[in-house]
Amino acid sequence: MPVRYTPPAPASLLPVPGVALGTAAGKIKTWQRDDVLLAVFDPGTTAAGVFTQNRFCAAPVIVCRRHLAASGRIRAWVVNAGNANAGTGARGVADAQTCCTAVASMLGCTSEEVLPFSTGVIMEPLPVAKIVAALPAAQATLAPDHWFQAVSAIMTTDTVPKGASRQVNVSGIPVTVTSIAKGAGMIHPNMATLLSFMATDAPIATDVLSALAREIADVSFNCATVDGDTSTNDSFVIAATGAAPMPSIEHAGDPRLAPVRAALTAVAVELAQAIVRDGEGATKFITIRVEGGRDAAECRKIALAVAHSPLVKTAFFASDPNLGRIVCAIGNAAAPDLDPARVSFWLDDVLVVDSGGRAASYREDDGQRVMKQEEIVVRVALGRGAAAATIWTCDFSHDYVSINADYRS
Amino acid sequence: MPVRYTPPAPASLLPVPGVALGTAAGKIKTWQRDDVLLAVFDPGTTAAGVFTQNRFCAAPVIVCRRHLAASGRIRAWVVNAGNANAGTGARGVADAQTCCTAVASMLGCTSEEVLPFSTGVIMEPLPVAKIVAALPAAQATLAPDHWFQAVSAIMTTDTVPKGASRQVNVSGIPVTVTSIAKGAGMIHPNMATLLSFMATDAPIATDVLSALAREIADVSFNCATVDGDTSTNDSFVIAATGAAPMPSIEHAGDPRLAPVRAALTAVAVELAQAIVRDGEGATKFITIRVEGGRDAAECRKIALAVAHSPLVKTAFFASDPNLGRIVCAIGNAAAPDLDPARVSFWLDDVLVVDSGGRAASYREDDGQRVMKQEEIVVRVALGRGAAAATIWTCDFSHDYVSINADYRS
Repeated sequence: MPVRYTPPAPASLLPVPGVALGTAAGKIKTWQRDDVLLAVFDPGTTAAGVFTQNRFCAAPVIVCRRHLAASGRIRAWVVNAGNANAGTGARGVADAQTCCTAVASMLGCTSEEVLPFSTGVIMEPLPVAKIVAALPAAQATLAPDHWFQAVSAIMTTDTVPKGASRQVNVSGIPVTVTSIAKGAGMIHPNMATLLSFMATDAPIATDVLSALAREIADVSFNCATVDGDTSTNDSFVIAATGAAPMPSIEHAGDPRLAPVRAALTAVAVELAQAIVRDGEGATKFITIRVEGGRDAAECRKIALAVAHSPLVKTAFFASDPNLGRIVCAIGNAAAPDLDPARVSFWLDDVLVVDSGGRAASYREDDGQRVMKQEEIVVRVALGRGAAAATIWTCDFSHDYVSINADYRS
Repeated sequence: MPVRYTPPAPASLLPVPGVALGTAAGKIKTWQRDDVLLAVFDPGTTAAGVFTQNRFCAAPVIVCRRHLAASGRIRAWVVNAGNANAGTGARGVADAQTCCTAVASMLGCTSEEVLPFSTGVIMEPLPVAKIVAALPAAQATLAPDHWFQAVSAIMTTDTVPKGASRQVNVSGIPVTVTSIAKGAGMIHPNMATLLSFMATDAPIATDVLSALAREIADVSFNCATVDGDTSTNDSFVIAATGAAPMPSIEHAGDPRLAPVRAALTAVAVELAQAIVRDGEGATKFITIRVEGGRDAAECRKIALAVAHSPLVKTAFFASDPNLGRIVCAIGNAAAPDLDPARVSFWLDDVLVVDSGGRAASYREDDGQRVMKQEEIVVRVALGRGAAAATIWTCDFSHDYVSINADYRS
C-alpha cells in the first residue's frame, strides 16, 4: 500500500477537451488485463517532452525525440506495459516505428505525429505484432473519460493507479489539466522520471510548451527518487490540444500562462510524490531538504546521497533513530571544503545535530517519535550560503528486496 | 556465512617480530567479549596510513592524521569496537586524545606515538573511561601471537574474523607480513575502506611506507564495495617494526622493496575480498570488470554504478538473469558520448550483450546457470579505449535489510 496516498476515483480524472483514450488487452505478458493504451488528440495539438538521460535509452525514447523534433505537433500516444523495448538495438527502433505507423494508418496522420512509449522488462524483443493487433480494440473504446482505464493499463509494479486533474480559470475561460503517471522502481531523477502523461486544452505554442515541460520536470519528477536507478525509458510528455476557446499562448511572458503553469506544476508535483509514496516496498515518505548551500547543485547532491544510502533507508524502515548514518551520508557527498562544524540537521522539529555534533538538547525519545511517523522531513543546514534543494524518497524494506528479487517470475 | 571465505586458523596469523598484541573486555556495549585492542611496537617502528575521505570523519581519524604527521613513528595502536567516536565534535577529539595519553603513560612514550581507532555506532559519546580502565588488562595479555584474538576483539557486524599472513625472502632474510581487518557494512571505496591493520618487520622509511600505503589501498580496499557508503572511520595503517636484521629501505627504487610490496599487496587484496565476501547479508561475490574505456576513471565509475544498483544487486540475490538492469546501470554511469552500439558484456563466459543489444547467441539458460553461482564475473567492454578497472561487490539480500534494520537493538 502506498504511504498516505489515496488513488484517484475514476470520475476525479477530468476529461480534457480534444483528447480521447482507449485501452485493450495485448497479452504482452501472461496477465488478464489491458496493457495497450491509445490516446488520440485533435488536429493542431502541440506537444513537448523530457526524456531519460540514460545512455542506453530505450527505442521508444529515440523515436519520441525524433518525432517531436520533426513537427512539435502530435495526434496520438501509443503505450504498452510489460516490455520496455530497451536494450533492443536497431530492431527495437524499427519495432517502435512499426507501432507508430500502424496508429498513423488508423488515424490518417503521419507516423511522426505518433509518440510511442513502453514500460516493462528490459532487453526482450518487443512483441510488436501483439501491440498492433490490439490497436483496433483500443480504438473502439476511445472516450474522453477513460483516463482511469488508461493509467490502469500502463501499471507495472505500481500498487495503485496514479493520476490528478485541475481546472483553472484563464481570462474567464475554464481550462483543464489531467495527468497520469506510472512507476514504482528504477526511479531516480535525471530528467523526467518514468512515464508521465499530461494533457491540457489550453492552446500553447510548441516552444513555450517545451520550456514549460523542462521547468515542470525539474521541480517535480526530478525531485523524486526511489532506488537511484534512472530508467532507460523515462518520459514525461505534455500535450496541449488547444480546444479551449482562446488564442494560442505564443510566448512565455503571456499572463495567461501563469495559471496554466501553476495547474500543470501542481499536478506534476502530486504525481511525483505519488510515485514515491507507491515506491517499491515503501512504508515511509521522506522529504529531504538541504539548505544553506553555496549553490543548488551541492544541496541536491547531498540530499540525494542521504536519499540513496541503503543504511539510511533501512534505518527509516526500522524506525530506528540511528542518525549517525545521515551524518555519514552528508559527509560522503559534501564538497571537500565543507566545514562539518557548521552543519546542523533536524528530524521534523527535532534538532539532532548542532554545529557538527549531537545537539545538547537531543533526546533519543524525540528522534524515536519522529522516526515512527509515516511521513518525515529531514532538514539539513550547511551554513555556507543561501541555496537549497528538496528531494522526496522512501525507505528500504524487506518488500523492496522481495519485489525486485521476484519481479520477472 | 561469508561467500567462499574460510576464516584464518589462529596459528596461521604469524607473529611479526617487534609487535605484541593484547585485548580486554571494556564492556563498550552489553556484550560478553573483548572489545579493546592494544598493539605495542618496538621503538623505531615507522608507520603510514590512508583514511576516509568522508567530510564527517571520525575523531580518531583526525587524531591519527595529526599523530602520523608529527613523527611518522609509532609505539602503539589502541582500538575499540562498539562506538565509532564519530559525529562527536570537539569532545570526540579530546576523548581520542585521552585514550592515546593513557597508553603513552603506560608505555613511557609520547601520545603522538599512539594511533587511536574506533568502530561501531556513530554519534554517541565515546565511553572513554571504560576504554582507559580496560588498558591494563589488555597490556597484561600482550603477546606476539595474539593476532587472532586482536581481530576477534574489533569485529562489529562481521560474521568471521579476517586476517592473513605472508613470509617472503628479502635478500636471504625472511620477512613477515601480517594483517587483520574488520568491516561488513558502510563499505565503499573512497580511500582505505574500514579498519585494516598491517604490520611487517621489514625496515621501511616513513615516506616510502606512506607511498606504499596509498598504492596498496588503491588496488585492494578501494576496489571493494558492499553498500556504497563510505564510513566516517575508515582507516588502513601499516607499521614497519624494522626488527628484520637488514638496513632500512630508504627509497622506492630499492630492489628489496619488491618482494615486500608483493606480500603486503597480496595480503591487502585477500582481506579486501574477505570483507566483501563477509558483506552484510552477502550470498554472492561479484567481480565487475570494465574494459576498453578511455581512462580508468570512467571504467571505475561504470563498475561502481553496476555494483551499487539495488536492482542489479537484488537480481544477483534472486539468481535472476534480469540483465537489462546491468545495461541500465551502465547507461546511467556512462559518459554522454559513450556509444551504446559499441558496448558488450559477459557473465563469466556467456556473452549477453553484443554491440549494444542482446547477443544473438545468448540463451536465458546460460545466464541462469551463471547467476546461480556463488561467484560471478561481470565483464563489460566499452569499445573506446584501453583502460580498465575492477570492483568487488556482493548481492543485496533480505538479510542486509534485517541486519541494518536491527543493528542497534
